[in-house]
Amino acid sequence: MNSLARSALERAAGHQQRFDASFEKYFAELAGDLNGAQLGHFAPRCLELLAQLSLRGGKRVRVALLYEAAGLVTREEIPGLAEAALSLELLHSHALILDDIMDDSPMRRGGPSTYYACREDLPHHPQAALGMAMMAGDLAGFLALRVLFQADLPADRKQAMLDVQLGVTTDTVIGQVLDLERDVHPSGDDELLETVCEYKTSRYTILAPLRLGLLAAGQDLAEHEESLRRYARLAGLSGQIRDDYLDLFGDPAITGKPEGADLRAGRHTYLTRDLLAATSGDEHDTVKAALGDPHCTPETLDRIRDIAHRRDVHTRLQTTIDRYAHAAAAEATSWHRHWNEDAVTLFEQLPLWNTRRTR
Amino acid sequence: MNSLARSALERAAGHQQRFDASFEKYFAELAGDLNGAQLGHFAPRCLELLAQLSLRGGKRVRVALLYEAAGLVTREEIPGLAEAALSLELLHSHALILDDIMDDSPMRRGGPSTYYACREDLPHHPQAALGMAMMAGDLAGFLALRVLFQADLPADRKQAMLDVQLGVTTDTVIGQVLDLERDVHPSGDDELLETVCEYKTSRYTILAPLRLGLLAAGQDLAEHEESLRRYARLAGLSGQIRDDYLDLFGDPAITGKPEGADLRAGRHTYLTRDLLAATSGDEHDTVKAALGDPHCTPETLDRIRDIAHRRDVHTRLQTTIDRYAHAAAAEATSWHRHWNEDAVTLFEQLPLWNTRRTR
Repeated sequence: MNSLARSALERAAGHQQRFDASFEKYFAELAGDLNGAQLGHFAPRCLELLAQLSLRGGKRVRVALLYEAAGLVTREEIPGLAEAALSLELLHSHALILDDIMDDSPMRRGGPSTYYACREDLPHHPQAALGMAMMAGDLAGFLALRVLFQADLPADRKQAMLDVQLGVTTDTVIGQVLDLERDVHPSGDDELLETVCEYKTSRYTILAPLRLGLLAAGQDLAEHEESLRRYARLAGLSGQIRDDYLDLFGDPAITGKPEGADLRAGRHTYLTRDLLAATSGDEHDTVKAALGDPHCTPETLDRIRDIAHRRDVHTRLQTTIDRYAHAAAAEATSWHRHWNEDAVTLFEQLPLWNTRRTR
Repeated sequence: MNSLARSALERAAGHQQRFDASFEKYFAELAGDLNGAQLGHFAPRCLELLAQLSLRGGKRVRVALLYEAAGLVTREEIPGLAEAALSLELLHSHALILDDIMDDSPMRRGGPSTYYACREDLPHHPQAALGMAMMAGDLAGFLALRVLFQADLPADRKQAMLDVQLGVTTDTVIGQVLDLERDVHPSGDDELLETVCEYKTSRYTILAPLRLGLLAAGQDLAEHEESLRRYARLAGLSGQIRDDYLDLFGDPAITGKPEGADLRAGRHTYLTRDLLAATSGDEHDTVKAALGDPHCTPETLDRIRDIAHRRDVHTRLQTTIDRYAHAAAAEATSWHRHWNEDAVTLFEQLPLWNTRRTR
């Protein structure tokens, strides 16, 4: 790794640290407001649950992308960036909380999902527990818009940034619904897999922070729109396929999710698609039987990992991840013409992090 | 009823009709946008479910309040009102959809709740049905903000109006959570009942449309804030207590909800509070046994109605509804000093509609 790449990594870590501190402060202030209003126990608890999930890490990729997107234009302090960062991560908490309700997932970010935390709070009131979790998610979504709305920014700049985030909210709903459709009607349709990725990952994780950062830095997006979209699509696909891949080949201590969660849920992913396509006979039956079996054992997962290695599914997925990652990096390389070298380097490096192997 | 009151009623009906037409158009355009994007079947269905619930009536009280609030100042056409009306009713759909998930309610507005419509769509996928309903609700909440955000308005006016709606979103979450607390820990606490009403009804149903209408008409709210709040509180309490009362004394064909739904859910309301307080011995036991019994029979509901009549609970609630309604009307009467007579008349009349008896 050269020195520009190394300092890009260090900057990303710095963004994460500074953001985590500001996120903590944000929640502390909100909690202060709520407690003053004497609203019983459930409302403060709802906010606390949201804060716990939000502050329990995550890589803050969106925050790094946001600050580096602004850094493409300038390294000066820019108003609105801090609020945009809070907005992005609140919207992410919103998506995670609702995701975990829909998937009935017990774990998130190495701790209990908000839904399961609520169920633990209210063991004899399952409907109220569901309601609390839904409200924690809802709150996150609305706070995400509110924090950006309250930023001290020129009206037209704020308008443009809110426009991005409001677009993300409806795109994310569409992505979630597409995801449900994929679960209910598993099909080998590659187009659906890519559309889900477009709505659930590319636009939301990559394109939105890029746009927000550039807008905050006063950049006119029109002439860069196509390149930003291409970059987001390629980097998004690379990241999504890697996520799918890690379901079987990741370390739960790092991913924060139990291994084989997609498989047990019968989810149609790039991994399960390739597993089904590459196998026949007994192997195919093993994969099919495990798909959608919530009680699938760790031994069966081991067997499927062996099958994946034997049938080169493992390697083929890695190759695909790498191909998209390198294409995204190449797209970022074209940005050297008009933007700051150091920030461009981060955008070149970021998709390549997907190519690192953990197992 | 005098002629000003009659024409106030006619205007309210006119607002409702015009709004219903514009709401239908809004959803048709949205559906067109979605269909163009070829997003499978679930995303268009999600929007369709939202449209069905949204267009299946309701009295559009918020819309009438909004237009009449603007009418306090001027009867000219004002930009932003149409978008504010859509925003209010979308936010209301949002609340209704989530409410029905949390309460597991089968019916809403005389048809299936969105949650139950999803369960009928996906009988073998209960988690996906839950997810679809949650996403329909989520979509409504975000569209509510988006439609107002996209209004063609001067920046400061739009900012003020968005500020109102963003405040409503978080207030409503707080109201819902307070409601959950009330269900889980039923108590005779009058303060909690009033706080729930403040967050779930007054601010949201009455104060927000009032503020939005006045803001759209260019009014500075600061000097009227206290009177608006008083009016919203009184009219809200009157309406809330009437809602509670109708759980036992309403006609399901008119309320659109099954009779005794609060009672069967064991909900702490003004009605159940008074029923418990006014009874002893066998009567008290009958009420207690019915509270929270989902299988409580129509015969038992009849018995409880008899008890309520015998113990004057029925009359006392009516008296309370009337007292708050008249106090709200009196607050509105003070507005004659600075605002248009015909619109003020509507605000005087509106709380009095709560005093009409259906049974």
